[in-house]
Amino acid sequence: MNIVDLILKKKTRQKITEKEFDFFIKGVLDNSIKDYQISAFMMAICFNGLDDDESFYLTKAMTLNGETINFDEIKDTIVDKHSTGGIGDKVSLILVPLLASMNINVAKMSGKGLGFTGGTIDKLHSIGIKTELKDKEYIDLLKKEHMFFISQSEKIAPADKILYSIRDTSGTIDNISLIAASIMSKKIATNADLIYLDVKVGDGAFFKTIKEARKFSKLCISIGKKFNKKVIAHLTNMEKPLGRAIGNLIEIKESLDFLSAKNEPSNLKDLIYSFASDILIDLSKAKDKQEAYKLIDKIINDKSAFNKFSNWSKLQGCKLDLNKIDEIYNPKYKIEILSEQNGYLEFISNELFGYSLIDIKAGRINKEDKLDYLSGIYLNKICGDKVSVNDVILTVYSSTPISDKVIESLKNNILYTNKPKKASKEILEVIR
Amino acid sequence: MNIVDLILKKKTRQKITEKEFDFFIKGVLDNSIKDYQISAFMMAICFNGLDDDESFYLTKAMTLNGETINFDEIKDTIVDKHSTGGIGDKVSLILVPLLASMNINVAKMSGKGLGFTGGTIDKLHSIGIKTELKDKEYIDLLKKEHMFFISQSEKIAPADKILYSIRDTSGTIDNISLIAASIMSKKIATNADLIYLDVKVGDGAFFKTIKEARKFSKLCISIGKKFNKKVIAHLTNMEKPLGRAIGNLIEIKESLDFLSAKNEPSNLKDLIYSFASDILIDLSKAKDKQEAYKLIDKIINDKSAFNKFSNWSKLQGCKLDLNKIDEIYNPKYKIEILSEQNGYLEFISNELFGYSLIDIKAGRINKEDKLDYLSGIYLNKICGDKVSVNDVILTVYSSTPISDKVIESLKNNILYTNKPKKASKEILEVIR
Repeated sequence: MNIVDLILKKKTRQKITEKEFDFFIKGVLDNSIKDYQISAFMMAICFNGLDDDESFYLTKAMTLNGETINFDEIKDTIVDKHSTGGIGDKVSLILVPLLASMNINVAKMSGKGLGFTGGTIDKLHSIGIKTELKDKEYIDLLKKEHMFFISQSEKIAPADKILYSIRDTSGTIDNISLIAASIMSKKIATNADLIYLDVKVGDGAFFKTIKEARKFSKLCISIGKKFNKKVIAHLTNMEKPLGRAIGNLIEIKESLDFLSAKNEPSNLKDLIYSFASDILIDLSKAKDKQEAYKLIDKIINDKSAFNKFSNWSKLQGCKLDLNKIDEIYNPKYKIEILSEQNGYLEFISNELFGYSLIDIKAGRINKEDKLDYLSGIYLNKICGDKVSVNDVILTVYSSTPISDKVIESLKNNILYTNKPKKASKEILEVIR
Repeated sequence: MNIVDLILKKKTRQKITEKEFDFFIKGVLDNSIKDYQISAFMMAICFNGLDDDESFYLTKAMTLNGETINFDEIKDTIVDKHSTGGIGDKVSLILVPLLASMNINVAKMSGKGLGFTGGTIDKLHSIGIKTELKDKEYIDLLKKEHMFFISQSEKIAPADKILYSIRDTSGTIDNISLIAASIMSKKIATNADLIYLDVKVGDGAFFKTIKEARKFSKLCISIGKKFNKKVIAHLTNMEKPLGRAIGNLIEIKESLDFLSAKNEPSNLKDLIYSFASDILIDLSKAKDKQEAYKLIDKIINDKSAFNKFSNWSKLQGCKLDLNKIDEIYNPKYKIEILSEQNGYLEFISNELFGYSLIDIKAGRINKEDKLDYLSGIYLNKICGDKVSVNDVILTVYSSTPISDKVIESLKNNILYTNKPKKASKEILEVIR
């Protein structure tokens, strides 16, 4: 077996076998296959694709040539949840303690964010949560609190890191099988029983159309099935920011407000309730949506969801009193952007928020970039809201002076309409 | 400008501009563009192709980001000749002195052979010719002897070496534009006025079909035209070995025999006469084929072609008396393969000879591989010859013991037919 033959096979539309993918991943890891051979192979895959079996073999090779988590000690079902990422996406931060407060085990392993916003791990770091735990530590957390958040271990699907960094800089990112193998290899290694995928669709997301998102979701479900794992994909709207807060600590604050029923209304609620109720029904903890919604309302209103987050956070290193989050979140600089017209609010581009976040250091371009945990954007008004001249539309926060360029670009992103646009659905489709 | 955008452009079937190819080649040379980005770009080109303009821009960038030869001192037309290579291909070794003996300037720069046989340079090294000359030295040779053979300088189209070594090991060799740019960048930098390409077609050649060879030839002609260079392509048969000798010194011997009218008949004559007469007519040294053939016959029969080779060779470092080539070519080991049947001779595969040549060290796989200059194969009988049991079909020569494996494989390559196969044409097509 040699890599040039493998490249030529894919180039001429032949199928790559399970053994060949294993040879490939082993070669990637021991450096016997060179970077330029990897990128040529990835490019051939971008052109000629992988079928469901090949995608499974690639995922399998990535998973098995690495460590996997052993949850044998935990007898109850373990849930995992993964989002393909979007502007203001704090669903995991809310959903995990929500489920855990109902005694559902949630094992959450996340990567650092690269791109528009910091990732879940960055957001947790902003309140001092430690995310590099030993096996025993996070398994104990799962037993005691039914939840943990940890950083992606280097030993889980280690080939993914190498493949990703080459794909990222060789124009070979956008293939559905390669994306699915990258995500699913880590999910399978994490070894939960039920894997919920939040597949974002729209301007602020990787998948721009529902067609692509659907194809990707079906492939992940097919890969999961071959590993005897149940995968459920929610295709959700990412045409506008999720919730009102975008950043790191500011998203923690919005999450805590949500968990204690203090948040202002936004599209966040639809998503959280939909995900949580689906999971409750799947685990037979509720017989239908109505019953599930009642259960969720209850644990939010009686503060048990907030208390779960607060108690768990102490066990994972947070030294702050999260009841005082309003005092804790106190950035030095703040600029309000006011409405210049009367009308209904829209934003031109969701993706544009992402670039502003990078400018104020709430997101990163290179993985070494340091974040300003306090910087962020708060949407005082959201899409469809009626606004009058001088109403505060949004507020920009930062630990360092905020540039005119950022303000200008955020202003240019505002659109006024004479009638409210029809609100789009938050959950576009659920695929099982 | 950045390389990822260039890769994505080609991936999405957009055209690459002249400036972009210049940026690419500069980045290849200064290592700011990484190997894995080069191979991904090459693979995208393999899938989506380059049009004539893009092929020209790539060639131009490769040529101009390197040194070019300055022949301002030479007023007469300078001819260059390039072969895409094949089993027993000694056309340059014969054609160059033949033309030079008729006072036609031939500037021949060659690479080392990689693959089935040593290249022209290896063959010349086998008789002690020095092929690394200074500019002044080879220009003086052109003035005095109307010919020189030199090794490809590292400074001529230096990006080609990097691109070639990556393409060779990343499954991205077989794109006509990339092959044309590789060859033409060196030809353009060599700066001859008339460029004759010998494009081999068939089992022992890179181009397996006339269709591919034609497409490649037309592209080279189009690239040449954009540089104001006349390119003439001869598409020639490579279904069987060229001539009777295959190897290094053994091919020098056959070439010298040819130049002094001592060789045994073979397909070599058709090719040499056809090439030489075309060139004579193009340069108005003969009015038609008949007159050209007479001229060629004359300089072969009166030994002026042989003397040209012999005199020139001394000036480029050969210390042997080439009149005594029969004594010089005296390998220690020799095995004759005899006919096992009565019938007419054919060989199953021309390419198979190539593998045997590598086994006896007449060809190399890696560029560091050392050659045995004396090893080689002589075809005592050629395709279509009538043979009887125990006739010598071919002889294998070597400086070291010849393995049973080589003999076995050469025996297995012999085919006996009850009638002679119709002889195929040597010159399939000439494209100008």
